[in-house]
Amino acid sequence: MGAAAVALLAATRRRPTTSLYLFLSRAARAGLHDAAAPAEEKAKTRRRRRSSTSRLLGPDIPDAWDPTPRAAPRPPPPGRAGVDYGCTTIIDGKSVADDIRFQIAEEVRQMKNAVGNVPGLAVVLVGDRRDSQSYVRYKIKGCEDVGMKSLLAELPGGCTEDEVVDSVSRFNEDPSVHGILVQLPLPHHMDEERILSAISLDKDVDGFHPLNVGNLALRSRKPLFVPCAAKACLELLLQSRIELMGKHVTVIGRSKVVGLPTSLLLQRHHATVSIIHAFTTNPEEITRQSDIVISAAGVANLDPTSDYGYRLTGDVCFEEAVRVASAITPVPGGVGPVTIAMLLANTLDSAKRAYGFATESQELV
Amino acid sequence: MGAAAVALLAATRRRPTTSLYLFLSRAARAGLHDAAAPAEEKAKTRRRRRSSTSRLLGPDIPDAWDPTPRAAPRPPPPGRAGVDYGCTTIIDGKSVADDIRFQIAEEVRQMKNAVGNVPGLAVVLVGDRRDSQSYVRYKIKGCEDVGMKSLLAELPGGCTEDEVVDSVSRFNEDPSVHGILVQLPLPHHMDEERILSAISLDKDVDGFHPLNVGNLALRSRKPLFVPCAAKACLELLLQSRIELMGKHVTVIGRSKVVGLPTSLLLQRHHATVSIIHAFTTNPEEITRQSDIVISAAGVANLDPTSDYGYRLTGDVCFEEAVRVASAITPVPGGVGPVTIAMLLANTLDSAKRAYGFATESQELV
Repeated sequence: MGAAAVALLAATRRRPTTSLYLFLSRAARAGLHDAAAPAEEKAKTRRRRRSSTSRLLGPDIPDAWDPTPRAAPRPPPPGRAGVDYGCTTIIDGKSVADDIRFQIAEEVRQMKNAVGNVPGLAVVLVGDRRDSQSYVRYKIKGCEDVGMKSLLAELPGGCTEDEVVDSVSRFNEDPSVHGILVQLPLPHHMDEERILSAISLDKDVDGFHPLNVGNLALRSRKPLFVPCAAKACLELLLQSRIELMGKHVTVIGRSKVVGLPTSLLLQRHHATVSIIHAFTTNPEEITRQSDIVISAAGVANLDPTSDYGYRLTGDVCFEEAVRVASAITPVPGGVGPVTIAMLLANTLDSAKRAYGFATESQELV
Repeated sequence: MGAAAVALLAATRRRPTTSLYLFLSRAARAGLHDAAAPAEEKAKTRRRRRSSTSRLLGPDIPDAWDPTPRAAPRPPPPGRAGVDYGCTTIIDGKSVADDIRFQIAEEVRQMKNAVGNVPGLAVVLVGDRRDSQSYVRYKIKGCEDVGMKSLLAELPGGCTEDEVVDSVSRFNEDPSVHGILVQLPLPHHMDEERILSAISLDKDVDGFHPLNVGNLALRSRKPLFVPCAAKACLELLLQSRIELMGKHVTVIGRSKVVGLPTSLLLQRHHATVSIIHAFTTNPEEITRQSDIVISAAGVANLDPTSDYGYRLTGDVCFEEAVRVASAITPVPGGVGPVTIAMLLANTLDSAKRAYGFATESQELV
C-alpha cells in the first residue's frame, strides 16, 4: 500500500449508503491512470454489461504450491470505470451502476415479452427508523426504474418476531416474488438470525443464508446469491481491470453484509486477504503493506444511523486518502449505487431461474 | 513474527498426518516458556478436559470500533500443553490428544451405562490408496480405544459415484451411526462435492457441509460440527493459553479441510487473520509480520500421497523453524493426533445430541 492507507479508519460522517471506500495502492492501479473516460467514450460504454456471476465468483484454478519465487502477474489492460483526479483515479461507481441498471432494464423488458412476467422484489421493513425507510425507498425506486415489481411489508417496531416471520413466509409462497430482503437492523427484541433463516433459500437476494455463505466460502461450490455489497466491490475492481490474483487485499470489517463476503469473494479471485477489525492491534501496519484496501468497518450497533452497518469511522477522511491512494471510490457515488444495482441483479437472476428464462445475454448473468 | 517464519513454506517430506505446523512468535508465547511439564505435573493434568465447543467457537463480543490506539491484551496465565526446548516450546500434541481421548472414553462409558448405546462412526473408503487405508486404520483404532463403535464401507476405486452415495445413504439411515466421513481424496472420476453433500447434516463430523461452513463463518451462528483439524489448532492454542484476540495470525493454505475453517474459527476468537496461498506473491513479508503462523499448505493434488491435503512444502524445515519460533508443534506429535481426537469428539457430540444425553461434563461439550 505504500503510504496509501497508513491510518485508514476515517472519520467521515456522510450518508452511510455509500460509505464504503475502496483504496488501491499505486502498484495495484494497473492502468487505471489511463482510464479517464471522456463523455463520448462514456456513451460508447453505455452498453457495457455487468460481470457474469461466474466471473464475479472468480476463476477456478487449483492451488499449485511452488517453492520458487513467483513473478508478479502482468497488469491487465486499462479499465474504463474510473476518471482521473490528479494522481488518483476516482472510480465512478455511479456510472458503473447506471450501466448495470441499463442492462437489467433491457433484460426485464425481454423477460416480460417472453414470459409475461417481471422479476419481483419484496422488502420487509420493521419499525420507523428514518434511515431504514430511506434505504427501502432507494431499493423500491431502483425496482421501478428497471421495470421490476416491488412489494413492501411495513410492520410496526412493536410487532412480534412471529409477525415478521409470517410476512417473510407469505412472500416465500408468492410466485411473483423472486427476492426477499428484510431491512436491517431489526428492533433489538427480535432474533435476526431466526428471521433471516425464514427466507427461502432461492429468494435470499441478500445472500445472508448460511448455506449461501458456506457455498461462497467453499471455492468448489457456487452460491445462489452473493451479498450485494461484496458483488459491488468486485464489480468495481473487475470493471476497473484491477488484477486481484496474488495481490494483498486488506478488508477492514467482517460483517456478514460487507466484510465477510467480500473477503471470501476476493479469495475466490486468488487474492491474499487480511481481515482487520475492531480488535486488531496493528491495523496501520497491515494496511500499509496492502495493494488494495476495502474499508467496510461494519458495526451497526456502533452507529445506529447506519443502514447495513457499513460506515467508515476513525481517523482518515476521504480528502486525506485521495492524496495518497492511486485509486479510490468516492462518497457518495462509490460502492453504494453499485450495491443497489447488484440487489436488482440478484433479483433478476432469481427470476430467470424461476422462469427458466434466458435472455440474449444469459451467459453474462 | 519477528524472524520466526521468514520463509515458511518448508520442504519436509514426513508423514502427512501430522504435517501441520503451528508457529508462534516470541511475542505471542505468553508464558509458554514456563510451560515445561515434568512427569508428575503431567500426571496431575491427566484429567484436563478438552475445550467445550462454545469455548472453541470463541467469545461472542460485538465489534466496538475505537479510534484510539488499543493496548495489547494482557498475556494469559502460563499454559500446560508444552514442554520447553531451549528457546522454543514444543507444543505436545500427543499429550493433549491423550487427555482428550481419556475424557471421551469416560463419557462413552457413562453413555453406555445410561442409554445402553455408544457413539458410532462410519467411514467410507474408496479405492486402495495405501495412505488412505492407513489414515482410516488410525481413525478406526481411535474409536476402539475410546469404546466407540466403528463401521467401514470399503469400495473399489472403479466403483460408481452412485455406489458411494448409496453407502453414505445407508449410514445416514442407520441410527447406530452418529458420524460419517468419506476418506479423501476420492478417485478423480467422482464428484467430491456431490458425495459430501449426501452426508446427513447431523452426521457431518468432518464439518465440510456448506451449511456447517456457513454457520462457522457467520459469527452469530453456531455450526453443528467444526472441521477436526481447525478444532485441533484452536485446542492446542487454547490449551497452551495463547492469547488470540487482536493477534495477527497468518494461515498458510485455504483448503476446506484445514486452512479455511481454521481462518474462520480464528476470526471468531477475534484474531486478525491473513490467509496466504499458492498465488500469494509476498508470503514472507506477511508471515514475518505475524504473531502466529499456522501452516496448512493444503493442496491434495500437489501431493498425491497426502491424506487431507495438508503437507508442508517449500523451503524451511522444522529444524530451521525451531530455532526462530518461540513455540511450535512438532512433526509427528503435533496437530495430527489432536485432529483424530477431535473426530472422536465430534462423533461423541453427535451421539449426545441423538440420544439427548448429558454426561456430568456436558457443559464442556
